[in-house]
Amino acid sequence: MTTAPSTRPAGTSAESDALRALYADWSDIIATTPELTTRLFRSIFDEWHQAAREPEDVTYREETVGGVPGIWALPIGADTSKVLLYTHGGGFAVGSASSHRKLAAHVAKALGVTAFVLDYRRAPEHPHPAQVEDGVSAFVALTERGIAPADITTAGDSAGGNLAIAIPLALREQGRPLPGGVIAFSPWLDMENAGESLKTNAATDALVTEALLEGMIAGVLAGGEIDPRTPLANPLYADFTGFPRLYVNAGSAETLVDNATRVAEKAAAAGVDVTLSIAEGMQHVFPCLAGTAPEADVEIAEIAKWYRG
Amino acid sequence: MTTAPSTRPAGTSAESDALRALYADWSDIIATTPELTTRLFRSIFDEWHQAAREPEDVTYREETVGGVPGIWALPIGADTSKVLLYTHGGGFAVGSASSHRKLAAHVAKALGVTAFVLDYRRAPEHPHPAQVEDGVSAFVALTERGIAPADITTAGDSAGGNLAIAIPLALREQGRPLPGGVIAFSPWLDMENAGESLKTNAATDALVTEALLEGMIAGVLAGGEIDPRTPLANPLYADFTGFPRLYVNAGSAETLVDNATRVAEKAAAAGVDVTLSIAEGMQHVFPCLAGTAPEADVEIAEIAKWYRG
Repeated sequence: MTTAPSTRPAGTSAESDALRALYADWSDIIATTPELTTRLFRSIFDEWHQAAREPEDVTYREETVGGVPGIWALPIGADTSKVLLYTHGGGFAVGSASSHRKLAAHVAKALGVTAFVLDYRRAPEHPHPAQVEDGVSAFVALTERGIAPADITTAGDSAGGNLAIAIPLALREQGRPLPGGVIAFSPWLDMENAGESLKTNAATDALVTEALLEGMIAGVLAGGEIDPRTPLANPLYADFTGFPRLYVNAGSAETLVDNATRVAEKAAAAGVDVTLSIAEGMQHVFPCLAGTAPEADVEIAEIAKWYRG
Repeated sequence: MTTAPSTRPAGTSAESDALRALYADWSDIIATTPELTTRLFRSIFDEWHQAAREPEDVTYREETVGGVPGIWALPIGADTSKVLLYTHGGGFAVGSASSHRKLAAHVAKALGVTAFVLDYRRAPEHPHPAQVEDGVSAFVALTERGIAPADITTAGDSAGGNLAIAIPLALREQGRPLPGGVIAFSPWLDMENAGESLKTNAATDALVTEALLEGMIAGVLAGGEIDPRTPLANPLYADFTGFPRLYVNAGSAETLVDNATRVAEKAAAAGVDVTLSIAEGMQHVFPCLAGTAPEADVEIAEIAKWYRG
């Protein structure tokens, strides 16, 4: 178990340190509670929302779409014909629509669209491909309601960033129309747990360790029954031909930064329109500091420009 | 440690059982985690919001009022000159504006007013009277912004129901104008931990035990340094002369039901306009099932009638 870094990197905002501190606190609980149950893991990670400020002028509505429960974030004045289909992070096992409601609402508001934040089935109770299936099911249900596929953007962070990429891949496999774009915040893709930044950034990432990921992989890949190179579980092995335009980011301090750079490179090589944004000194899923740290707000403003461009 | 009841009482809705199940789950964690820290207690109790559905047509705004941070719940079309000053439950030690945002928003929406949900200082770091002081400070700041005292209703649940009652008592001590009304959901008042229903309802209450309350009392009363009969900590010892009109409720299944009945009796004896509502078979703070169980929605509709009446 690595020790979480105790100081923020030069050049980053004092406000951004709140995320590092939250992660360091979780890491401390994980390190000092040997029998931390999935149940308690979920309780702790539902605090993820604490990093973000309540966005103003957004209302919410719970609904089940295509059999998948979730929360609509409805910014006042948003274009209700356009939807961000948001899949939360948490290693496929923890996190929820509640933990990511505020982040999704901030992004939706900046884009001038609505967001539906999925409470997809979680591992280990539901291993891969349950999460991808739920995402596809919600996507198809939205299109059956009259939302044009091109007006849907799949978006997500960490494991949910994986899903935001895997959902269009699964749709393509089924011969269905694809979303207009994909946004992946600090996507976690490498189910072989073999990225170089796992080691080179071990001292700067306050949360994500090889050991933590190993546990999450065991959960989502059914204790090794599922091949870690399955393209819909590990999009680093997917064919990106014809994939929608992709915005992918990460923080330079994170152990998963090379998941973002590798998928960007791979998609670009397949001819995909890719925007890669690496934020200096930032932690995993730094946009969840929306409304509280300038780095997150600048990033979300950039995404809004990308969306409209 | 009593065993949480495993079945819901006859005549209660199936939906209401979700709160009993959530409490039973917390009780199970408390019973099986001998060294559960305040930190983890807070994580678990922040799940309180899960019992309620996201209310529709409400926006939120974080602000610091009178030095106290909190979340505004702003129902669309609400009378912004009227404020519910909401203090959350959690034994003065746990719970937060986030855990009670949805409940406060449901009540505010039903009343047609706005709500400010306080993140008051919590015990044991901040023993009594820090919580009352924060409530008074926010109340005074609202009046200095031009909100008429009579247009403020103090409201809260459990320990926050205690504060909703103690804040007007403290305002009166300071010779300040009082709120127009007080709403207390399952108030926890008895710092002597001596109510009869602690024993008679021990088998039906899924969460609140003498032992749990004992720990909370030690926290808020600074390990016994503060007299448990202090009227602002234990309003069962307060003088209710001139107190605002009071709506107080509880579930008949809870160990704290006689806190509600005792304070109603005491206030009525002092000439206060009191409405007491005891909901058959309901658990502690059952209105937090707002939007998910009919018992909560009926109760909140009754409170709206009381408010307008």
